[in-house]
Amino acid sequence: MRPRARELGIELGAMKTGRLNALTDVEGVGVGHSTLIEGDSVRTGVTAIVPHQGNLIEDKVTAAVDLFNAYGKSTGLPQIIYEGTLETPIMLTETLNTWRVADAIVDYHRDRLGLQPRSLNVVVGETNGGYLTDNLGRHIGVEQVFEALDIARSPAGRGKVQEGNVGGGTPMTGYGFKGGIGTSSRVCDGFTVGALVQLNCGSKEDLTIAGVPVGKEVKLPKNPEASPGNSIMMIVATDLAVESRQLWKIAKRAALGLARTGTFGGNGSGDFTIAFTTGKKPHEGRGDDFLSPVYKATVEATEEAVVNALFAAETMKGYQGHVRHALPLEQVRDIYQKYGRPLA
Amino acid sequence: MRPRARELGIELGAMKTGRLNALTDVEGVGVGHSTLIEGDSVRTGVTAIVPHQGNLIEDKVTAAVDLFNAYGKSTGLPQIIYEGTLETPIMLTETLNTWRVADAIVDYHRDRLGLQPRSLNVVVGETNGGYLTDNLGRHIGVEQVFEALDIARSPAGRGKVQEGNVGGGTPMTGYGFKGGIGTSSRVCDGFTVGALVQLNCGSKEDLTIAGVPVGKEVKLPKNPEASPGNSIMMIVATDLAVESRQLWKIAKRAALGLARTGTFGGNGSGDFTIAFTTGKKPHEGRGDDFLSPVYKATVEATEEAVVNALFAAETMKGYQGHVRHALPLEQVRDIYQKYGRPLA
Amino acid sequence: MRPRARELGIELGAMKTGRLNALTDVEGVGVGHSTLIEGDSVRTGVTAIVPHQGNLIEDKVTAAVDLFNAYGKSTGLPQIIYEGTLETPIMLTETLNTWRVADAIVDYHRDRLGLQPRSLNVVVGETNGGYLTDNLGRHIGVEQVFEALDIARSPAGRGKVQEGNVGGGTPMTGYGFKGGIGTSSRVCDGFTVGALVQLNCGSKEDLTIAGVPVGKEVKLPKNPEASPGNSIMMIVATDLAVESRQLWKIAKRAALGLARTGTFGGNGSGDFTIAFTTGKKPHEGRGDDFLSPVYKATVEATEEAVVNALFAAETMKGYQGHVRHALPLEQVRDIYQKYGRPLA
Amino acid sequence: MRPRARELGIELGAMKTGRLNALTDVEGVGVGHSTLIEGDSVRTGVTAIVPHQGNLIEDKVTAAVDLFNAYGKSTGLPQIIYEGTLETPIMLTETLNTWRVADAIVDYHRDRLGLQPRSLNVVVGETNGGYLTDNLGRHIGVEQVFEALDIARSPAGRGKVQEGNVGGGTPMTGYGFKGGIGTSSRVCDGFTVGALVQLNCGSKEDLTIAGVPVGKEVKLPKNPEASPGNSIMMIVATDLAVESRQLWKIAKRAALGLARTGTFGGNGSGDFTIAFTTGKKPHEGRGDDFLSPVYKATVEATEEAVVNALFAAETMKGYQGHVRHALPLEQVRDIYQKYGRPLA
Repeated sequence: MRPRARELGIELGAMKTGRLNALTDVEGVGVGHSTLIEGDSVRTGVTAIVPHQGNLIEDKVTAAVDLFNAYGKSTGLPQIIYEGTLETPIMLTETLNTWRVADAIVDYHRDRLGLQPRSLNVVVGETNGGYLTDNLGRHIGVEQVFEALDIARSPAGRGKVQEGNVGGGTPMTGYGFKGGIGTSSRVCDGFTVGALVQLNCGSKEDLTIAGVPVGKEVKLPKNPEASPGNSIMMIVATDLAVESRQLWKIAKRAALGLARTGTFGGNGSGDFTIAFTTGKKPHEGRGDDFLSPVYKATVEATEEAVVNALFAAETMKGYQGHVRHALPLEQVRDIYQKYGRPLA
Repeated sequence: MRPRARELGIELGAMKTGRLNALTDVEGVGVGHSTLIEGDSVRTGVTAIVPHQGNLIEDKVTAAVDLFNAYGKSTGLPQIIYEGTLETPIMLTETLNTWRVADAIVDYHRDRLGLQPRSLNVVVGETNGGYLTDNLGRHIGVEQVFEALDIARSPAGRGKVQEGNVGGGTPMTGYGFKGGIGTSSRVCDGFTVGALVQLNCGSKEDLTIAGVPVGKEVKLPKNPEASPGNSIMMIVATDLAVESRQLWKIAKRAALGLARTGTFGGNGSGDFTIAFTTGKKPHEGRGDDFLSPVYKATVEATEEAVVNALFAAETMKGYQGHVRHALPLEQVRDIYQKYGRPLA
Repeated sequence: MRPRARELGIELGAMKTGRLNALTDVEGVGVGHSTLIEGDSVRTGVTAIVPHQGNLIEDKVTAAVDLFNAYGKSTGLPQIIYEGTLETPIMLTETLNTWRVADAIVDYHRDRLGLQPRSLNVVVGETNGGYLTDNLGRHIGVEQVFEALDIARSPAGRGKVQEGNVGGGTPMTGYGFKGGIGTSSRVCDGFTVGALVQLNCGSKEDLTIAGVPVGKEVKLPKNPEASPGNSIMMIVATDLAVESRQLWKIAKRAALGLARTGTFGGNGSGDFTIAFTTGKKPHEGRGDDFLSPVYKATVEATEEAVVNALFAAETMKGYQGHVRHALPLEQVRDIYQKYGRPLA
Repeated sequence: MRPRARELGIELGAMKTGRLNALTDVEGVGVGHSTLIEGDSVRTGVTAIVPHQGNLIEDKVTAAVDLFNAYGKSTGLPQIIYEGTLETPIMLTETLNTWRVADAIVDYHRDRLGLQPRSLNVVVGETNGGYLTDNLGRHIGVEQVFEALDIARSPAGRGKVQEGNVGGGTPMTGYGFKGGIGTSSRVCDGFTVGALVQLNCGSKEDLTIAGVPVGKEVKLPKNPEASPGNSIMMIVATDLAVESRQLWKIAKRAALGLARTGTFGGNGSGDFTIAFTTGKKPHEGRGDDFLSPVYKATVEATEEAVVNALFAAETMKGYQGHVRHALPLEQVRDIYQKYGRPLA
């Protein structure tokens, strides 16, 4: 198992991380992955994120969306923008599986939760994994969705979060390296912010880690081919009791965290942020100025989540023999040395 | 078969209609319905709208979206907003069938069009028909989607458009009466505008037709019960070659046409407009002022499409014995008489 | 003095009006006009609206904006959208006076309120009165702004609101007739909604009052010439304690009320709504569904405010001999008779 | 005179700069500053940017706006969003001077351009300089506006652009150091992108230059006090013939360039981008993917413009004896050495 960025001594930002340095540091939030790797061509999965363990339809959480770069197919976003709430888990998967995952959520409500929903705003985020997986085959369905959700709704789902080639992140590419799921968190007086990303965007030459131009310096056997899609889903959670409008402003900061890792937001990219609050911690802010440290926490946690995805993901071979190489950590160590920042 | 509003002498607005007074007056646009009525509880369907008969992925059309009231689950809208194009047909269906319809579109591309899409921005609009149909059963799938699309892509799909209890409109309610699909068009020097709606919103007491408070005056055996959902999908097409930003301004006018029929936009309503242009007619406008007649055409065509849905839809009995009564046209005739506007 | 629409027996909508049928039915809200009519060419003014009598910088009110048709020059709107608050009075004036009015608000804070603001989000709405007034002369400044604000902040400002050719509405045109300021309100269990408009939009043939096509039926000595601008400012106030996001949804309904009077939202029009809440009445709503009656109240009050502007405004002759005729109320009476709705 | 970042060997990004490395590399664009420094307390000014030398009302340019962080008072933005055009110069000044500058633009049209505008969408951007200047005095008026515009419309305005303590940037603060005006550009096959910023945001500890944490490392005599406001205006120009919707996507990238310099977008900040195109260079793009290099150019040029503002601005003492220190370039040189990037 590869180390996380912080374990190597790379510090992104100035604020303290939560205990797990993960989205699950926000109390009650659960994450579950279902990963499907079969034969030569199937490298896919789905990740479930639940804001709490109860009945979300009854106890909706306040939520918001930022469509920084809306080349993407996520479902359920308009209603979040308008109603300011989230009434289902957030699912992350591969583009062409989006609608099967969405439909399976209806089944989950009926079959696992014993509900009879007549209307349901199902939220599925996606990035395109078609370079490494046969995505037209749409291999994700009820089985994987139930597995991911069952984990997310269990005690295990509220602990450490697996990163890299797991769940929805399984076939993804980040900055030309193997990408996938990454997470991080920040804690501050009175609140926690967690971020989780499904990283599938960026070009190798743009990758910057803590200001070091890692992408330009790393040598790979050959230059990475482009992926068919190029996107990132960013999930931000907090326990601070804020309004949807304020969460929207928080969500907008995720793009700034992403920017620090070097991307310029290429056109074919769907760079969406979904933010929600469990609303447990009241604040004493009048106006919105109390949000500034929350913004900073969001920028830092998102930046580190992106980097963690790259640190965790291992080299993968898949569809049509395509290969994505893991970020070579030994080279990263050397590059840091060269840039005056020796690592542990 | 019930007459259309205009056949009874009701004129909505001042501009001329197209030949068919339908969305299909915009050249090349095709509409197909698949209607599924089975047993006591299944009253549903799907409607397909194609901007042209070619390969939309290759020949995308310029498009735009207005989220007037975004309590809705439509898929594919963020990418339209951002990229300004539509690359798949627009499908209209019942809420809980949304994702099965979306997924079936992928199949259609592979199985009927012989394409291998690795990414696809599937656009499905929905309103909630759970009052008259067992929507949790999600009865719409590949078969109905293929049928609707095959019709839309045939010469038949470019002719007269069936209204009322057809396609996605099958189980819908409008202003407490039986609702469903309605359409209308306007022509003017140099351009055509068509509108098609899937009407499922409004309260009886608010229904206004050409300024006459029909809803207040009509007597029904008993006051209509509320539906579980309450929305409208509005599709606007034009042949005028305009930009996506301009189409967005056109799309926003659909809500004004809807407003003329009396609704105040209740909260649980998803009132979305998707507009596209086939781009065949150039304009000589500099700035946007040339758009004013296009706005007017959009308001009028949308208003008349809503009224046509009510005129066409027949009384339906469905799920759990629920009944929606057709707008009683004889009463409408009397009411018009009373309001100084004798009908033909 | 001309009667208000309701005094003639015209009922718009179904809900009850407040005591004054005016924006000032929302407790604490004050309105003041300063009207400047000089010589042949100066027909202008400014209207001030204050949400309460205190220090707004300290006690900001929650606010929101809908840019239905953003061909307009209003100042201060982006910050309202983002921060969700209003920290200064809302001023309504003539387009080219916008910035002098804005600057005079800074003076008012220093000279009348004894404050030393270093930053101030000044909100000025405008419509173009250049048909009847020499607007390039920009005759509105500190004197008029102070007068309007002093009235708005006095007990007189919290009473009956003058309509028609007053304040910012002085030179305006509505549906080809003389337009200007109009107001109305609705009360319901637990809340009040007030609307005030500065009406300067619409074409004569489109004017519809309570469903009656008044504009088409009225005969004028000659057809009205077009104005150089064509806009409406709509102000909505409520005492219901709602969030900015909810107020935004309320604000969006003002355009529906406007639509009922017949306009299609011509391109050169700035149709803006600013909504605020004094936040005095708590609500028990969970989710947003409790907002539906507030939407309805907003639609009705806005519609009636537009009609009241036309009923109040008297014929005016101004700049370059231009004339705008008042809506001829005797003809309106006859038209109502013809349409089966005899007036009192 | 202090060197620009690039003269010291600091390279931001990978693309080539234009000849002047300035907004004026976009052909036809003119920039003019009027700087007002008087006594102990007046440190202010205004900057004019003209897209071309002709009559902008007749020959509007396509434009767009991104409101990343809308705590700001800029005028004229809603109409740009809606109409997609710019019809006046862009003026940058100090917050409380905003409306006097706007009003003076009307005078300029009448008195210098010999026009009689009856409507004018005046665009003024602002940031708050109240730490170093007596901003409540509002010292900027017709004289300074005419001076800045006369220069911008002259051959001199189309050459080298002064940076630092000039024009609207005179009293501004950037990352706790003296801020102000900065500019940069990028050229690529077929297009040029220029950026100009009025920098007034950020905290010292966050300043990052080409990935080096300069803000944390630099020692100042004492820690900088907070400013009353904290914003940035970003202007992006290109010669590529794109639509307003596409320019909006370009404009959104400016925030990514800003993010690279370290800010997290503090709440009291107005971070606006206005983008326009002179539209001289056609493109062969279908869809928007051809925009990716334009995004990259925008990110890089904005990042470098921010850094250039800090490099150019000299220590200033002003209002109430407040002092802002220039970024100490000798320290920057040492810090770069430490971080493995020795400068020239």
